[in-house]
Amino acid sequence: MLIGGAALATTAAVSFLPGVAHATTRAGAEKPIDFLFVIYPNGTLLDFAGPNEILSRIPNTRVRFASPAGGPVTLEKGIVFGPTEKLSDIDKVDVICIPGALNLSAMMKPEILAHIRKLSESAQYVTSVCTGSLILGAAGVLKGKRSACHWAFLNVLKEYGAIPDSARIVKDGRFMSGGGVTAGIDFGVAIAAELRGAQAAQQVQLLVQYDPQPPFRSGNPADAPENVREAVYKMLPGSKDGLMRPII
Amino acid sequence: MLIGGAALATTAAVSFLPGVAHATTRAGAEKPIDFLFVIYPNGTLLDFAGPNEILSRIPNTRVRFASPAGGPVTLEKGIVFGPTEKLSDIDKVDVICIPGALNLSAMMKPEILAHIRKLSESAQYVTSVCTGSLILGAAGVLKGKRSACHWAFLNVLKEYGAIPDSARIVKDGRFMSGGGVTAGIDFGVAIAAELRGAQAAQQVQLLVQYDPQPPFRSGNPADAPENVREAVYKMLPGSKDGLMRPII
Repeated sequence: MLIGGAALATTAAVSFLPGVAHATTRAGAEKPIDFLFVIYPNGTLLDFAGPNEILSRIPNTRVRFASPAGGPVTLEKGIVFGPTEKLSDIDKVDVICIPGALNLSAMMKPEILAHIRKLSESAQYVTSVCTGSLILGAAGVLKGKRSACHWAFLNVLKEYGAIPDSARIVKDGRFMSGGGVTAGIDFGVAIAAELRGAQAAQQVQLLVQYDPQPPFRSGNPADAPENVREAVYKMLPGSKDGLMRPII
Repeated sequence: MLIGGAALATTAAVSFLPGVAHATTRAGAEKPIDFLFVIYPNGTLLDFAGPNEILSRIPNTRVRFASPAGGPVTLEKGIVFGPTEKLSDIDKVDVICIPGALNLSAMMKPEILAHIRKLSESAQYVTSVCTGSLILGAAGVLKGKRSACHWAFLNVLKEYGAIPDSARIVKDGRFMSGGGVTAGIDFGVAIAAELRGAQAAQQVQLLVQYDPQPPFRSGNPADAPENVREAVYKMLPGSKDGLMRPII
């Protein structure tokens, strides 16, 4: 929180202290970053497995996982992922990231949303992948902010006072979000660059050989062949207008 | 196993049976596909989390996970994934997929490799992501076959009599493979199309919004900026020549 000229001056002064100057280009001198994924029962694995593969490889960054109950979490399709810390045990992190799911009910509880709001207030970055932005919205932290979401659910963001943005990666101040499921990888590279610089992000991109070559052009409604798009609209009621309802 | 004209005639006849004709375009009439990921301690999550997100959503397909010991598996970075069946309990699957890791030691044991070889002999497709192809190579099933691998390890395939192919997705008869880590998603879409047709694969591509837009061009050594490439070559000894050694 910068409060006028005095705080600005302090910030400027810090950048001249030995060992802190150029901190963003010298990994050894950087403050470690605490990056928290908040996961939950019925969550979609790839939403966080994608960005985790990037963030767990950038320098001086601790990736943590938390969930409402702590311990192993049973995701969509019966996959069990762990370990996780108990969300309510965590007071502060540098980056909070909420991945998505079709079924958000485990997160849509007043005490959970209050804790998400608390962590979001002090975090340097508040982020999401896929329908995770609807959880941030329900927590009340996206009012007036542009945000991404899975295309099928994008316009539900308006109900929380957020501004839907169909871009794959959306940045609005300290808020960053990715679109549906696989967008988490692009989001991961983008926030890695934000946190640790373009060089570090590009190195990890090469490490995980992220040179995507989808066999088809079918990854968003504008590109997909009409018969594919129509079949998916039918499968996901409301999705044609970006108004599919998550389970809450 | 087609044995001359008689077997071919039988195959042809089957396609005229009611309910079997056009089986590839009618999900309800198709034989379920058993798709097995063989995972192991120290494995890389995204190698199989990527294709799993595709394959677990295509019609009439059962995705299974097995590991040498069965139960929950501790992957790279301390992530615990489960449940898994015990590999030796599985006699036959339609598709076997071996994801990769830097540390392959849990798989490079004679009895494990023998079981991989056995499953590979009867499978309709024998597949891998990243350095998983080195495990298939060590199992002796890739002799004379073209295969992909993570770029840093690609030429190690030659030691197993396989033919390294730097393409992101490689198909050689019933052998299909993806390159490093994130290539698993492209591989997943490609094999989904192979198993269930282009329409089904494209529908899932739209469901998971797979319209990649990496913030940088740095996903393979040919594209990455020189300073990025050189830094990664230094980080991964031998990688410049595709001869990095996995831990075995």
